[in-house]
Amino acid sequence: MATKNAFYAQSGGVTAVINASACGVIEAARKHPDKIGKVYAGHNGIIGALTEDLIDTSHESDDTIAALKHTPGGAFGSCRYKLRSFEENQREYERLVEVFKAHDIGYFFYNGGGDSQDTAHKVSQISEKMGYPITCIGIPKTVDNDLPFTDCSPGFGSVAKYVAVSIREGALDVASMCESSTKIFIMEVMGRHAGWIAASGALAREESADAPQIIVFPEIPFEQEAFLEKVKHSVKRDGFCAIVVSEGAQRRDGTFLADSGGKDAFGHTQLGGVAPYLAQLIKKELGYKYHWALSDYLQRAARHIASATDVDHAYAMGQAAVEFAIEGKNAIMPIIVRNPGEEYSWSVGQANLADVANVEQKMPRDFISECGFDITPKCRDYLLPLIQGESYPPYKNGIPMIAKMKKIKVDKVLNTHFSI
Amino acid sequence: MATKNAFYAQSGGVTAVINASACGVIEAARKHPDKIGKVYAGHNGIIGALTEDLIDTSHESDDTIAALKHTPGGAFGSCRYKLRSFEENQREYERLVEVFKAHDIGYFFYNGGGDSQDTAHKVSQISEKMGYPITCIGIPKTVDNDLPFTDCSPGFGSVAKYVAVSIREGALDVASMCESSTKIFIMEVMGRHAGWIAASGALAREESADAPQIIVFPEIPFEQEAFLEKVKHSVKRDGFCAIVVSEGAQRRDGTFLADSGGKDAFGHTQLGGVAPYLAQLIKKELGYKYHWALSDYLQRAARHIASATDVDHAYAMGQAAVEFAIEGKNAIMPIIVRNPGEEYSWSVGQANLADVANVEQKMPRDFISECGFDITPKCRDYLLPLIQGESYPPYKNGIPMIAKMKKIKVDKVLNTHFSI
Repeated sequence: MATKNAFYAQSGGVTAVINASACGVIEAARKHPDKIGKVYAGHNGIIGALTEDLIDTSHESDDTIAALKHTPGGAFGSCRYKLRSFEENQREYERLVEVFKAHDIGYFFYNGGGDSQDTAHKVSQISEKMGYPITCIGIPKTVDNDLPFTDCSPGFGSVAKYVAVSIREGALDVASMCESSTKIFIMEVMGRHAGWIAASGALAREESADAPQIIVFPEIPFEQEAFLEKVKHSVKRDGFCAIVVSEGAQRRDGTFLADSGGKDAFGHTQLGGVAPYLAQLIKKELGYKYHWALSDYLQRAARHIASATDVDHAYAMGQAAVEFAIEGKNAIMPIIVRNPGEEYSWSVGQANLADVANVEQKMPRDFISECGFDITPKCRDYLLPLIQGESYPPYKNGIPMIAKMKKIKVDKVLNTHFSI
Repeated sequence: MATKNAFYAQSGGVTAVINASACGVIEAARKHPDKIGKVYAGHNGIIGALTEDLIDTSHESDDTIAALKHTPGGAFGSCRYKLRSFEENQREYERLVEVFKAHDIGYFFYNGGGDSQDTAHKVSQISEKMGYPITCIGIPKTVDNDLPFTDCSPGFGSVAKYVAVSIREGALDVASMCESSTKIFIMEVMGRHAGWIAASGALAREESADAPQIIVFPEIPFEQEAFLEKVKHSVKRDGFCAIVVSEGAQRRDGTFLADSGGKDAFGHTQLGGVAPYLAQLIKKELGYKYHWALSDYLQRAARHIASATDVDHAYAMGQAAVEFAIEGKNAIMPIIVRNPGEEYSWSVGQANLADVANVEQKMPRDFISECGFDITPKCRDYLLPLIQGESYPPYKNGIPMIAKMKKIKVDKVLNTHFSI
């Protein structure tokens, strides 16, 4: 097989370690100059391919590429653009082939979550449907930890570590003042549909009775009375109550707690967040003084406290994608396989993109305690290995160093403008 | 002078490094067994003294005391209790003398901010007014950085580092998605009256044009038009806009932006925060999609990303307090003195508690840029040394280790209950 260029892009919400996957792809590709020519990164995901907006990573030094491993965010830009089916929008696929041909691209690596793997899967059909040969490999990524087949999703372990460390620290703070002041500390975390991130708050504990005392999952319909009872009990027992709540927490009727009917300063319905909603509920019903935090992007960008295990996973997935491609595999996604045994170890496996696309891995019910406000030991056994190890970035002037990319664009050769 | 026991307590909002000061006090005291017998920690600040609720730190091993250096929160509990004047509430002072006498306490170390130093100052008058000899030393602490005389307040440098690191990471996240999605990221930080913490967000920049593009200070009346203009300009130039806003941001008439007139889910006036207020304002006026974060306690508890310089300061203040006491000094507070010269270095000085109490160090106007949305180079020169160095705690099971104290209480010898 002749040397072909590769296309790599990042898609969906970014993570603290998605650039570690980029690093894995580019470093692995550089080891196979006989197979892979240049790695062109799509500017803003698949949009970069459609609009012929490509970054030539060959201008970046080995050191710069290595620095991607400790740079959060999406170094090449991301997007939430989803390809429609071939039948619905053939024009897009024709355009992709046009761009791939123009730049001699024979490899397509797409780094993202469920929706993005759907895009990767669709691109993988180009060979058959359009007669243009392209090797297509998905690379898993999502803080939501909801990709199927893989034991976990790269990006999740670092959010989990951030949440565990943060609620541990926040709980120590509120515990200090609880006898004469604030008794409640609520931390709202991401997870619209799945409670994986909220669950990781439980890893803050050394002993089972430690904070956080309550976790509110989106999977369990919120029962106000049971919740307030548990808050009261925690304050009575410990003097305070630390709570981790998923942004997706909802009532039995499926409405989000965050859609609480409040009005913002401009008279519009207040959309977020669930933390202030619960805080106000506790204040009104129990009278306790509260504080609450909402980390939002900070949790998924927190490369400074990334899990070393997660960084390893993310890098390995990028590397494996290239190796699989070179071995002639196609339309697959490397996955993380947890090996059997007491001690945590993992290896790289693979799943078919056709099976992965648009399937969500939900939190099993037996990962959530019977009362619905905690995880089970089984869940802890699953989660704990994923936050192990600290992978500190280098610092300069007191702040983390990041990859400084030249981002030199590939000259456009197509005369046509493609509007998305 | 005969051996006397010492009283140490923590007061006001806790920090990531207040326990480093506790460590400094106890380790220094243990080096002088000829002068200082036991160190009794007040449970919940001065309340511990008034209620004879004392923790005997002599039961804690050297290793446990050393571990305080990397434990956030207030290990002995804190309070916001302020002693009234001698004339107003003589009963409290009589009680203090009673407790001090009962436990042979000759040293009083009080670790806190402006209000707490006022308490320390009042206690220092006991010798004169009540004829009970006690050496009284304040130990500076506050994330607000508003204590006078000292070059900075221990606790501030670590919040500053947390804010700089967090907004740097959050800005990388929003930058990744800005072309097709969210363009605005707002991070709300502490600082009801002073913009020191908000200012530290500017340390996230390597180049002057880097994010965050806007900082909103409580000192500068908020001008909506100028703010929106700057947001628009940033989005035009960079594709996105990262904003750090102080919780105390206010209008020209002195009303807080956070008091935005919104109603919560229970129909009450929405009190926080300023981040969602600005986000909604931008959405309404400019149409940009937004995300916002509010770190609350997380910022001041974030020992995992503490500034090594701040940890050193905090420890040194505790240590110096004991040394000053042993030298026979009284009614003072050790301070951090910035030495002259290009390279940052510092030494320990002292200020009189009478001068410190209830005086706030405001941000000088020439630390804020003319436009009011940025810091000046002078401010950067001041702030930058304070976030230097990373002081990582040890980790176990993926989370930071903390001091595990026995917290054995001193037997009460007084028969009287004192209600506060």
